[in-house]
Amino acid sequence: MWAELLPVGRSSASGGYRRYAWTAADADCRAWFREQAEARGLAYEVDRNGNQWAWLGDPTAGDAVVTGSHLDSVPDGGAFDGPLGVVSSFAALDELRHRGARFTKPLALVNFGDEEGARFGLACVGSRLTAGQLTREQAHRLTDGDGVTLAQAMESAGHDPDAIGPDPERLARIGAFVELHVEQGRALDLTGNAVGVASAIWPHGRWRFDFRGEANHAGTTRLADRRDPMLSYAETVLAARREAELAGAVATFGKISVEPNGVNAIPSLVRGWLDSRAPEQHTLDTVVGGIEKAAREYADAHGIDLDVVRESFTPVVEFDHALRDELARILGTDTGLTVPVLGTGAGHDAGILSGSIPTAMLFVRNPTGVSHSPAESAAEDDCVAGVRALADVLEGLACR
Amino acid sequence: MWAELLPVGRSSASGGYRRYAWTAADADCRAWFREQAEARGLAYEVDRNGNQWAWLGDPTAGDAVVTGSHLDSVPDGGAFDGPLGVVSSFAALDELRHRGARFTKPLALVNFGDEEGARFGLACVGSRLTAGQLTREQAHRLTDGDGVTLAQAMESAGHDPDAIGPDPERLARIGAFVELHVEQGRALDLTGNAVGVASAIWPHGRWRFDFRGEANHAGTTRLADRRDPMLSYAETVLAARREAELAGAVATFGKISVEPNGVNAIPSLVRGWLDSRAPEQHTLDTVVGGIEKAAREYADAHGIDLDVVRESFTPVVEFDHALRDELARILGTDTGLTVPVLGTGAGHDAGILSGSIPTAMLFVRNPTGVSHSPAESAAEDDCVAGVRALADVLEGLACR
Repeated sequence: MWAELLPVGRSSASGGYRRYAWTAADADCRAWFREQAEARGLAYEVDRNGNQWAWLGDPTAGDAVVTGSHLDSVPDGGAFDGPLGVVSSFAALDELRHRGARFTKPLALVNFGDEEGARFGLACVGSRLTAGQLTREQAHRLTDGDGVTLAQAMESAGHDPDAIGPDPERLARIGAFVELHVEQGRALDLTGNAVGVASAIWPHGRWRFDFRGEANHAGTTRLADRRDPMLSYAETVLAARREAELAGAVATFGKISVEPNGVNAIPSLVRGWLDSRAPEQHTLDTVVGGIEKAAREYADAHGIDLDVVRESFTPVVEFDHALRDELARILGTDTGLTVPVLGTGAGHDAGILSGSIPTAMLFVRNPTGVSHSPAESAAEDDCVAGVRALADVLEGLACR
Repeated sequence: MWAELLPVGRSSASGGYRRYAWTAADADCRAWFREQAEARGLAYEVDRNGNQWAWLGDPTAGDAVVTGSHLDSVPDGGAFDGPLGVVSSFAALDELRHRGARFTKPLALVNFGDEEGARFGLACVGSRLTAGQLTREQAHRLTDGDGVTLAQAMESAGHDPDAIGPDPERLARIGAFVELHVEQGRALDLTGNAVGVASAIWPHGRWRFDFRGEANHAGTTRLADRRDPMLSYAETVLAARREAELAGAVATFGKISVEPNGVNAIPSLVRGWLDSRAPEQHTLDTVVGGIEKAAREYADAHGIDLDVVRESFTPVVEFDHALRDELARILGTDTGLTVPVLGTGAGHDAGILSGSIPTAMLFVRNPTGVSHSPAESAAEDDCVAGVRALADVLEGLACR
């Protein structure tokens, strides 16, 4: 199962994955999901927002237990972020059938669309739409780097973009959603456990900084006559690191777009994207406020116009305490150990859905903490432990 | 004539020009050149390196007087850099015919290919090949941002890439080359003159700085665990400005390429290009050496691997003193004024050819000094003064 999925959308140059929403690589991943569902005799469906579902039992019966994750990737992402949760869902079902488990509730496996936001800039589009946290009109305005709108991309992939929108009936049928995910830091590794339960997702957001100066000849324009936005950008990158260090948060400028981007031209525009996250809301406000204040001072000093736009924001997510405790109890009973409960800086579909339905997350150990990179890894034993834990949780929730 | 050329390859979004070598916009510019040549009864030819020539008189007679410039542009370039010299060449010929001038030497008008290097990263490819400063093998290895080689691009545009190479026979027929160009700084404007003569071109070069770190998740990787190359890049951008200021030189980071360039991914690679120029070689060495030293210190501090590659370099160019003095004499006789003789930080085909044949340059006033930008400008009166000056010079050189 895992072997079939591994080569899809993989760059031979970097070894990383480029599975962006509504591309050919994405379609291959989705075809794989459908095949896995049908091979197990599950009822396959695509919801109005392009998320894929595979049902065991009556989808309309209510109080369903749902598990899954996503198959899309960041640019040059790793093999585990997303796919581990989807593959583990199918594997956990296989394990439960092997155990002869008798389901008292409907079970569904899900692949949420466009979780990473690599193509259209907004993460968790599939779950956001479903939960009503993104309107059809907002989604239709999303555009990729080539000027293709999300609506156009959906349409070329054979999905009706006018059908998208909130799906409260679907959410009302779900009693619990559990997402298994490779951990994206080293917190779990430091505890010595292979599997952990999520407590909360840090508040996080993306801000676009547009530094506008004046394009000019790099060879003939005196330094004193320049309005070079690259200088203010560079100063702001360093300010972001300082502010994050002071506050115990993280802040990253990882994406940039420069115009005209010529070797012998002073740029007219440097557009940098800030990603920042912190354990608490007020800390994040302090960090981003400090970065923006510094950026404005630098811009003013160089005659640069600065616009700062918050492109997305997700407040702190506390996962459902009852479900979280239930998971820890199930896993603790199984292993006789105390299962670690951890916060995370990464956003997930589970975080989006936690506003609508009880959700929980399981993390699988990441020995290096590396993620969003071809070097992302997880030990095979730990992946097997993850599948066993997920099977235990599904059995505990759906076979009561 | 000017009106026909203005809309070609112009972006409606920026108002700037995107006339890159061997593209459709370039082909339109080249068709325009051919039409202008044929409309004047000139003998049109394309040389082995893709440069366009329009001859009045016998090309093989020797001691020809040649004028012209280039029609390609930087990304979002202005209307004047290059085209002013080509348009003025045709206009000067019209003026001389109007005056009833009698040519005693062959005259040629020329459009050099790929002067800006916007697509393949190396400037003055057409003149470099002709002068033997770039070999066929080196040229064949040049590749654009989409992975298309110069050879492939030439071939698709209908030019035989195997024919390129040194063209000493052609150069041997030329007695003098004069390039008219809009000035790209404010030196001429500060003298109060509409037209000036070039003395020298500053030594200049391009260096590529590859900062390699480790791609990772921007939300979950602790600051202490990061190897973020964007930080070393930012520090180096600021170091470049400081070093240039100290030395009275210029240094610019105007082009950048980031991998994977995702909002929520710490970059694995930040590749920045440095353009630096100075009045003298030892000053340039000091500036670039200082920037590289600082960059290595920053990279070491962040666990970043740094490679610095010199992608191109042009030593100081002193234009032919006899020809330069001749131009100043001709223009001074005409106006009764002392014509300013100025250095420049910009590279030109005239600079490349000055190693093989006597060359000179005329500059037309640029009131703002802005160049390589849609805001590049020159007053109509000054352009007319430039045409008159070029006509005077051609008359003085070719009608003796």
